[in-house]
Amino acid sequence: MMCEANVYMVDREGNEKLIIESVDKVISEGKNITLENIFSQKMTVKARIKEMALVAHRIILEDND
Amino acid sequence: MMCEANVYMVDREGNEKLIIESVDKVISEGKNITLENIFSQKMTVKARIKEMALVAHRIILEDND
Repeated sequence: MMCEANVYMVDREGNEKLIIESVDKVISEGKNITLENIFSQKMTVKARIKEMALVAHRIILEDND
Repeated sequence: MMCEANVYMVDREGNEKLIIESVDKVISEGKNITLENIFSQKMTVKARIKEMALVAHRIILEDND
């Protein structure tokens, strides 16, 4: 494993759901975040970054309503 | 090096300035971002995450005015 991270969406109750693994690039534009992993899979979600723990390879997103 | 990242602030002209190295944890709250590195140094900045390239150990912040 290199330094990519797994990305989770957390809901209002604090439950985390893995949405994409092994993400390298993250681009935030307006209310959207585009995630691209090391396999060149891309995903755009309407969310904001809540927190990250890079050594643990974790990025937590939350709804931005 | 583990999977921490160096954090840069970019200005409107696109110039990047390194503000803190070896960041592990990033917490976003309102208009502020708190950064904590592997040496337990903490910094809070008024900014938003613009983009990240984790394999390259880079996080780019921008002013959120």
